[in-house]
Amino acid sequence: MQTPQSKLGRMMETDTMEERRAVVLLSGGLDSSTVLAIAKSQGFSVFALSFDYGQSHKAELRAASRIAGNLGVRRHITLKIDLGTFGGSALLGNGAIPKHRSAGEIGEGIPITYVPARNTVFLSLALAWAESLHATNIFIGVNALDYSGYPDCRPEFIHAFEEMANLGTKIGAEGATIQIQTPLISMTKAEIIRTGLELGVDYSATVTCYDASDDGLACGSCDACLLRLKGFAENSIPDPVEYRKA
Amino acid sequence: MQTPQSKLGRMMETDTMEERRAVVLLSGGLDSSTVLAIAKSQGFSVFALSFDYGQSHKAELRAASRIAGNLGVRRHITLKIDLGTFGGSALLGNGAIPKHRSAGEIGEGIPITYVPARNTVFLSLALAWAESLHATNIFIGVNALDYSGYPDCRPEFIHAFEEMANLGTKIGAEGATIQIQTPLISMTKAEIIRTGLELGVDYSATVTCYDASDDGLACGSCDACLLRLKGFAENSIPDPVEYRKA
Repeated sequence: MQTPQSKLGRMMETDTMEERRAVVLLSGGLDSSTVLAIAKSQGFSVFALSFDYGQSHKAELRAASRIAGNLGVRRHITLKIDLGTFGGSALLGNGAIPKHRSAGEIGEGIPITYVPARNTVFLSLALAWAESLHATNIFIGVNALDYSGYPDCRPEFIHAFEEMANLGTKIGAEGATIQIQTPLISMTKAEIIRTGLELGVDYSATVTCYDASDDGLACGSCDACLLRLKGFAENSIPDPVEYRKA
Repeated sequence: MQTPQSKLGRMMETDTMEERRAVVLLSGGLDSSTVLAIAKSQGFSVFALSFDYGQSHKAELRAASRIAGNLGVRRHITLKIDLGTFGGSALLGNGAIPKHRSAGEIGEGIPITYVPARNTVFLSLALAWAESLHATNIFIGVNALDYSGYPDCRPEFIHAFEEMANLGTKIGAEGATIQIQTPLISMTKAEIIRTGLELGVDYSATVTCYDASDDGLACGSCDACLLRLKGFAENSIPDPVEYRKA
């Protein structure tokens, strides 16, 4: 077994030998922006991937570009892919986004904001890009505490994806090990915010709201806003983004 | 254990109770067209999914529409998704398509026509649609014999994808079992053609060539053409598609 010290030494040695590349899924929200900062802090050269997938809140995509610029990435791609064609989610305009739900309600069942197989689709496309880049690390901001209702945020799903990715790719078949990195998976929202602030994330640039207005103002009452506000409150700091007047 | 007879009885009973839906990945080539016919013959109501993913041979997409029309599907979607943004494959215009290779050469290593994580991406999007449709069956025309060089055509990859799909979706989490159906996986090209002809597939409507001209004429010398021609020859019937003059 290695000590953290020798592990770090080995990592830095590799670093000087070649660039360590990672693909980071970046929605422009609080979680994925923190993940990007974490990947950078671990020495990765970051290739950020966002999706214009038919989500009703386009302000997210502008936020993703701001964050990619602020934190410094090697390249940022926004891929257009019309998941709305398939239907089946409130986030794609099929149904109203729930508001003012209690913590207990948020944690219960699979919400109607779930987009069918979204993380599977996003990770698959990240995998395609990673393979082209010869990158073996893919970062995603899934969290098993706050979003326990989403099946594709669970650790067992991530492990199964990783196994599949290593079998279904050329780099995997040739002996490299693809790793899906989920640094937030067991952190509370308050811990995520604390980590991001330490790493210099400017949370005023992020958009978390499921129902943001075109100019990026948050509603303050959807599940995503409520969890975010709770996280800032637990750190006793104000959320720097603007909320719409009720 | 049930006899085939009683199994069939049970299936027909279910059939009369509700429509059995399947998503079929349809490229417009010989294999996926045969798979569509097989899914229909098993009583599925077919939702066909094609991709405009930046492939150089657009004739394939016109073929997919012809086949979907000929064989009769509930719906056919062609989703645009620019995999060319990621680079890394001869099929996406990054490198010349190999020609006139021998059977031994075709079977060896991972060819440069491999598109990074393509089947993972295609199956993920099929999964997203299947989930919206409450369909638990997804058909894909992978074949482990002729294309042994592609890691994402191997049975172990398909099994891993299936496991991941059942963990990462709402329908999976709620107890349904998603199945990735690969009826061609251990068939030779000659057997695939024989099966399709029995089921009424009009192979003159398909485009197999990696390097088809804009008007759909096949080159006759890429790996895909050579395997197809061999399959027809082994059945002692002429291939009904037109080949370009050398």
